[in-house]
Amino acid sequence: MSEGRRITVLAGGVGAAKFLRGLLAVHPNELVTAVINVADDFRLHGLAISPDVDTVTYTLSGLVNSDTGWGRIDESWRVRDELERLGGQTWFNLGDLDLALHLYRTQRLGEGATLTEVTSEVCEKLGIKAHLLPASNHQIRTQLKVQNQGWVDFQDYFVAQQHNVVIEDLRFEGIEAAKAGPEVLSSLANSDAIVIAPSNPFVSVKPVLEISGVADVLRERRTKVVAISPIVGGAALKGPASRMLEELGFERNSVGIASLYRDFAGTLVIDQQDSELAPRVQSEGMRVLVTDTIMDTRDRAAALAEAALGEILISGEGKQ
Amino acid sequence: MSEGRRITVLAGGVGAAKFLRGLLAVHPNELVTAVINVADDFRLHGLAISPDVDTVTYTLSGLVNSDTGWGRIDESWRVRDELERLGGQTWFNLGDLDLALHLYRTQRLGEGATLTEVTSEVCEKLGIKAHLLPASNHQIRTQLKVQNQGWVDFQDYFVAQQHNVVIEDLRFEGIEAAKAGPEVLSSLANSDAIVIAPSNPFVSVKPVLEISGVADVLRERRTKVVAISPIVGGAALKGPASRMLEELGFERNSVGIASLYRDFAGTLVIDQQDSELAPRVQSEGMRVLVTDTIMDTRDRAAALAEAALGEILISGEGKQ
Repeated sequence: MSEGRRITVLAGGVGAAKFLRGLLAVHPNELVTAVINVADDFRLHGLAISPDVDTVTYTLSGLVNSDTGWGRIDESWRVRDELERLGGQTWFNLGDLDLALHLYRTQRLGEGATLTEVTSEVCEKLGIKAHLLPASNHQIRTQLKVQNQGWVDFQDYFVAQQHNVVIEDLRFEGIEAAKAGPEVLSSLANSDAIVIAPSNPFVSVKPVLEISGVADVLRERRTKVVAISPIVGGAALKGPASRMLEELGFERNSVGIASLYRDFAGTLVIDQQDSELAPRVQSEGMRVLVTDTIMDTRDRAAALAEAALGEILISGEGKQ
Repeated sequence: MSEGRRITVLAGGVGAAKFLRGLLAVHPNELVTAVINVADDFRLHGLAISPDVDTVTYTLSGLVNSDTGWGRIDESWRVRDELERLGGQTWFNLGDLDLALHLYRTQRLGEGATLTEVTSEVCEKLGIKAHLLPASNHQIRTQLKVQNQGWVDFQDYFVAQQHNVVIEDLRFEGIEAAKAGPEVLSSLANSDAIVIAPSNPFVSVKPVLEISGVADVLRERRTKVVAISPIVGGAALKGPASRMLEELGFERNSVGIASLYRDFAGTLVIDQQDSELAPRVQSEGMRVLVTDTIMDTRDRAAALAEAALGEILISGEGKQ
């Protein structure tokens, strides 16, 4: 009996969103929980912006710009263009439709709602049945030590500098004091399976794992945890994960990923292009599962979810 | 010699903006200062909104929606419509172009700039040569005691309830601690003439007058101060000024205005439709000047400025 099996996914942005979209095609949506990184969150123009929560939200509601994997489809830029005219900061490229969500969130947070509550409200409005849980309602801020620059904020590194710089270290300001958000630890403790999505291990997964209690649950439940490598053929499909592996002293491939996750996950899913790495992943002490990890369509993402979760999922039971 | 004569205008929103636009057509712009009410300012969605400053800014830069007298011409509503879909607050009707200014202001305030500095930056970007001075950089908040409701915030009364309710009292939270903004008092002290614009005497002019030092300068320089009545034929051209006069115990006409301003202004300009009130304004101890006060075109606003300021202005010297 796998009916009613609960799955929790540790999620960053684009890669996690694509995986979740696939998973939700083949599993009852209300049984899926995503614990989403909030260490990229920041304030701009006074607005509370949660890039990973938003990317997952837009993707699962069908509103995402599928060309970029983030932001809104049919987006317009009237506010940004006017802001540019005024000499304002436009490096983050806030679209008009996207802005509406930031306005809503900021207003609600100002009224005393938590990010968890706001996210739940938005999901309800947009028809998302899966549970999207911000990893924490406390402020955690990723900073990167960039060669010749010192410590810079994540969005400066990632968006303004387009991650075209060498990093030497990273830290998560506020993580010691941060508590896991409501239902995060219980969801991890009570799931039938836990997935570490194919997200950046340093800036998406690590700032979730380092929240008090999260890594402990994963270590205890290691055999139920399956991680999906975000690296294919030595390169991340998106973002700086592969160069970060190298810059931070790890192998620039799924073996490097295995060395990061081996304490937390029993299984690593690697791409079929990297099948020759399977024995080396096993040497790190992980089961290895070789399959197609490229999620350029929803069907391929669903197939990846089915492969990763095996008997946890019943094909055909899912719906969206 | 009236060359180089400096004029300072106490300003609210729409009426003041129209007057200023006329004045700037006939007087060197750099010699005109507007001290603008900030007691309507508020935060919505985390954004710092300054309605009167914005109305004056948009009007003087030619960007105003001339149908309404406030907001932007060629405005669009993409953000608001999406915010409505999310269940957000849309009662204030923030347009896309208008939002850009609020984003800019909020960002700059967050960086430590003052409202005075931000306003100056925006004026420079938009080519406004007159000096727009927020009355204060401290938080002042108009509240109205509404029949059967108790105290409500200004924007709730004015926008959400469309001022279709009876008010019993008003107060300006924070006014005791508020200091006049930079150059406000010196501008009033050093001007060759001071104009109280045809703005709402209770919610636009009073919260400027009550800032420490402002009323004192006007009392001392009373003969240099000319007020323009916002009431024509017993009704305000816009907004709730006339019903507020009655509700707060004043005559619902320019005599009521005179009784409010007589200590601060030597002269009251009233509309030609109300010429029969002239003796009664004089009985309040003010000079009276009867002219056309309806500013439906820039030329008529300019003519009003010339009539109100008389020999202070040299026609034809002005430019924009």
